[in-house]
Amino acid sequence: MKTKIGFIGLGNLGTPIAKNLIAAGYHLQVYNRTLSKADELDQASITKCQSPAEAADGVDFLLSVLSNDAVLTDTVSGEEGILKTFPKNAIHISMSTVAPDTADALAELHQQSGSRYLASPVFGRPEAAAAKMLWVCVSGNPEIKEAAKPILESISQGVVDFGEGISNSNVVKLSGNFMIQASMEMMAEAYTMAEKFGVDRTKVAEFFGNTLFNAPIFKNYGKVIAEHKYQPVGFTTELGYKDASLVFKLSQQSKTPMPFAGVIHNRMLTAMAKGRTDSDWAEAFGRGVSDDAGI
Amino acid sequence: MKTKIGFIGLGNLGTPIAKNLIAAGYHLQVYNRTLSKADELDQASITKCQSPAEAADGVDFLLSVLSNDAVLTDTVSGEEGILKTFPKNAIHISMSTVAPDTADALAELHQQSGSRYLASPVFGRPEAAAAKMLWVCVSGNPEIKEAAKPILESISQGVVDFGEGISNSNVVKLSGNFMIQASMEMMAEAYTMAEKFGVDRTKVAEFFGNTLFNAPIFKNYGKVIAEHKYQPVGFTTELGYKDASLVFKLSQQSKTPMPFAGVIHNRMLTAMAKGRTDSDWAEAFGRGVSDDAGI
Amino acid sequence: MKTKIGFIGLGNLGTPIAKNLIAAGYHLQVYNRTLSKADELDQASITKCQSPAEAADGVDFLLSVLSNDAVLTDTVSGEEGILKTFPKNAIHISMSTVAPDTADALAELHQQSGSRYLASPVFGRPEAAAAKMLWVCVSGNPEIKEAAKPILESISQGVVDFGEGISNSNVVKLSGNFMIQASMEMMAEAYTMAEKFGVDRTKVAEFFGNTLFNAPIFKNYGKVIAEHKYQPVGFTTELGYKDASLVFKLSQQSKTPMPFAGVIHNRMLTAMAKGRTDSDWAEAFGRGVSDDAGI
Amino acid sequence: MKTKIGFIGLGNLGTPIAKNLIAAGYHLQVYNRTLSKADELDQASITKCQSPAEAADGVDFLLSVLSNDAVLTDTVSGEEGILKTFPKNAIHISMSTVAPDTADALAELHQQSGSRYLASPVFGRPEAAAAKMLWVCVSGNPEIKEAAKPILESISQGVVDFGEGISNSNVVKLSGNFMIQASMEMMAEAYTMAEKFGVDRTKVAEFFGNTLFNAPIFKNYGKVIAEHKYQPVGFTTELGYKDASLVFKLSQQSKTPMPFAGVIHNRMLTAMAKGRTDSDWAEAFGRGVSDDAGI
Repeated sequence: MKTKIGFIGLGNLGTPIAKNLIAAGYHLQVYNRTLSKADELDQASITKCQSPAEAADGVDFLLSVLSNDAVLTDTVSGEEGILKTFPKNAIHISMSTVAPDTADALAELHQQSGSRYLASPVFGRPEAAAAKMLWVCVSGNPEIKEAAKPILESISQGVVDFGEGISNSNVVKLSGNFMIQASMEMMAEAYTMAEKFGVDRTKVAEFFGNTLFNAPIFKNYGKVIAEHKYQPVGFTTELGYKDASLVFKLSQQSKTPMPFAGVIHNRMLTAMAKGRTDSDWAEAFGRGVSDDAGI
Repeated sequence: MKTKIGFIGLGNLGTPIAKNLIAAGYHLQVYNRTLSKADELDQASITKCQSPAEAADGVDFLLSVLSNDAVLTDTVSGEEGILKTFPKNAIHISMSTVAPDTADALAELHQQSGSRYLASPVFGRPEAAAAKMLWVCVSGNPEIKEAAKPILESISQGVVDFGEGISNSNVVKLSGNFMIQASMEMMAEAYTMAEKFGVDRTKVAEFFGNTLFNAPIFKNYGKVIAEHKYQPVGFTTELGYKDASLVFKLSQQSKTPMPFAGVIHNRMLTAMAKGRTDSDWAEAFGRGVSDDAGI
Repeated sequence: MKTKIGFIGLGNLGTPIAKNLIAAGYHLQVYNRTLSKADELDQASITKCQSPAEAADGVDFLLSVLSNDAVLTDTVSGEEGILKTFPKNAIHISMSTVAPDTADALAELHQQSGSRYLASPVFGRPEAAAAKMLWVCVSGNPEIKEAAKPILESISQGVVDFGEGISNSNVVKLSGNFMIQASMEMMAEAYTMAEKFGVDRTKVAEFFGNTLFNAPIFKNYGKVIAEHKYQPVGFTTELGYKDASLVFKLSQQSKTPMPFAGVIHNRMLTAMAKGRTDSDWAEAFGRGVSDDAGI
Repeated sequence: MKTKIGFIGLGNLGTPIAKNLIAAGYHLQVYNRTLSKADELDQASITKCQSPAEAADGVDFLLSVLSNDAVLTDTVSGEEGILKTFPKNAIHISMSTVAPDTADALAELHQQSGSRYLASPVFGRPEAAAAKMLWVCVSGNPEIKEAAKPILESISQGVVDFGEGISNSNVVKLSGNFMIQASMEMMAEAYTMAEKFGVDRTKVAEFFGNTLFNAPIFKNYGKVIAEHKYQPVGFTTELGYKDASLVFKLSQQSKTPMPFAGVIHNRMLTAMAKGRTDSDWAEAFGRGVSDDAGI
């Protein structure tokens, strides 16, 4: 008999994670706003639910992968939210990218109702999720982390522990997104400058991506930005702007002046102001720098 | 009988390169301002010279590895400069990090006196040079690049061609140094912010260096910055400031607004203003961000 | 028989305004968290109240001058807030510097309870308030503005109308504070640079304040910054940071990239991080720039 | 019999200054690259010259008003430069906006040839020059300043002394241009943000120009920027960019991090990159900010 766990959020990232959980032998009580998304999962291994509350009913674990703080908060504490049915001591493994104080507040709500919340945001694009190549960052109570580990290991290439502060892993996740955005800005600046000197920007991107900066971020986004190939859209400017705003807020809360974060924020804001809301976030950088340089 | 080539500049980088040339079977006519530096080379494989002109006399190739534009220019066209004796068609392989217009001007001077100049800046720290792990960037006339290739391959892990523009490779070199500096700034901002939220900054640096940003820049400087371990000094703030100024000048010449370059420039300038001229350039970033954050 | 009006907020700015209202012949129903502040007003012309609700009871107009959005919101809609007693059609003249969306929300609350809200922030330091030299910015419904005009004219040198958008005047107020902060930053940068070239920074400040920039901002803050005389504290860095954060938020809401606002924000944040929370905001700029310049 | 003085540079600013010198009773030995410009001066009061050397011949004083460092340097020390004929002890009153080190170098050259150089840059647009409303900044040797004073007073509303450092006044001049540019940027940011909130930007500009910021810079450029009325061109972006570059260089030389100077520099660079080289510099700010804000 398979172990039942709750699962909420069948977006680009959530869907491959759900598939891997099924492959690992779990039975999922699935909820998604557009429930038809669940049609592509193995029907024998899931139970479709009409609400978060239904998905949370009677399980020891529930995973959620949602798009922003408001949606996550509503999923937890809304009319038909998780907490309406979530069993005592059950653990909510929350993978969304949200602000640390949202995580802190949700952890508090779970505790009040006798259940537990684990901040466990992930790094990786949908393809990485499909290949079980995600990285999961966790933080908080050691016992909770220990209990959730087998599930997290079944969908990732590694689980990294950032200590006991409940929302530490959220801070790490946003730091990483900041570093990805900064990498795109730096490449756009460098490659555009080289181009204006008559150097082949694709060649430059390729060189750095294969030598000093031979990490996926620089290889993949380097190519995208050098060639101005922003289709298909992987991650929208709107979501990128959400992240940039959260990072700026972290800089405020922690009183850490971050001039790069300011540049990035303005870059995303300009893209939004120019109507590039639904474009890939790499375009906000790549096209933004070229625009300013008159090309 | 060994092939004789000229060699000028026995600094941190020049010395291991000279050793590799000797190992590859060349005999070096060596000049260095402080000639005693040549004592650590195999004496049977070198001839000590009293001037650049003497080192350039009668050779087909001469390599130079110098600290800045002024020194290089003087070495070429000064009283006892290379051009006083450099044979017709001989090739000057110039590895220094200099401005593109310095390279263009020097190429012109060589041509006027019948010899040839090859811009061939390198990426890599002294340890990389010792291990023949440098990357060499070349550009300019195909014939010159072809002729110099065997020598360059004997001291590096690869020679990358950036087209026929004489100083293209200088642009690439400065773009790379800009990207290294931007990487240090972004890490300093991210790790300091994480630290102020109570997250272990060393742990964060280690995580990114092993996953999304698993490239040497992020691994090595990430550790340095996370742990504030700026000893021993590898590359001084003064030299880093020189690079930042050159990048800023490139941004001006090419009319490419580069806001990150502005932030970096100010970071180096602040470090200089505070008397950290001789500290490692990583400290300018790592300590600079922490200073502003009040820690 | 004197007209009775409500008055809430006897801070540095509120007190001189209250005195001018009394001088203009009004009787004030006064509330202040520390009610003893009312002792310095003419006792025959005031009635001391124990709550905002009491101050708002039975009057046609109520003025409030409070320190931030949260305090103002609580004063309006809290347990013993204004709206508990405020008569139908009575007008709340709200002079605090708050976010436009706070003003919009409060206007909505007043309307729901049958009364009216007028955003009317002011420019001017306490001395200016005492001398009736404030400038009042108003916006919103023409009828409300017209009705409040006599009261506003009795405490200012002019009332300027910014149209019918309820919170337009709040936008103008924050734009002005942004411009004041930008003026301080520019002076600090210019005077510090001049100083480092050996030019007398006081002389420079005096020259500009008397010629091209002969406006109070540049005269007064120019002297303060040039001489590094930050005592007595007129306006704290904490309040300045509040304004800088609000401006940043406006830049986000309106999708207007404002790089100067980013610099200012970081300047205030650095001052806060270094523990200068209670210092004059001019010090955050004047000392901040000098710190970075190593002097 | 009238006193003869040399005069070089009949540009927008030089011409009204020349006219005022003539009105004050001087006879001018005039040189200008396009000599036909001299046709609009009173012919009885001038002698047209074919070179700087001819204009400098036999006079006690020579005034120059030139467009940049290179032109000024050539005018002084070129083939037919001033120094070829300039009498012993004669004083060169140099009004151009140039870098301090250019002024220092030129002062040195004059001294070597027995004459004297006075850095005396001016503030004011052509209309101000015509109305004798310029401000002159001087610095250097007290005796030289004293000797030149009557001439300077005859064309300005005041002569301000910035001490004995030869190029102090050049530093002040560039500081002032920096502050003017910063004022334009801040207005563009504030007025665009207000506009995006639905507030009338012209009304906002008018309010600040008449109240807190009632100085000419804010009144005049405030109107220009608020109304986007950049015709006729008063001062080109190209010249503005020259100034911004000089300011940046001063920030480097003096080791004073100036983040506003960085923003301004990028603003001018973007305008140049977009082909607005010959537009009014106010457009670089006004249009630049609006572009980024998508309007």
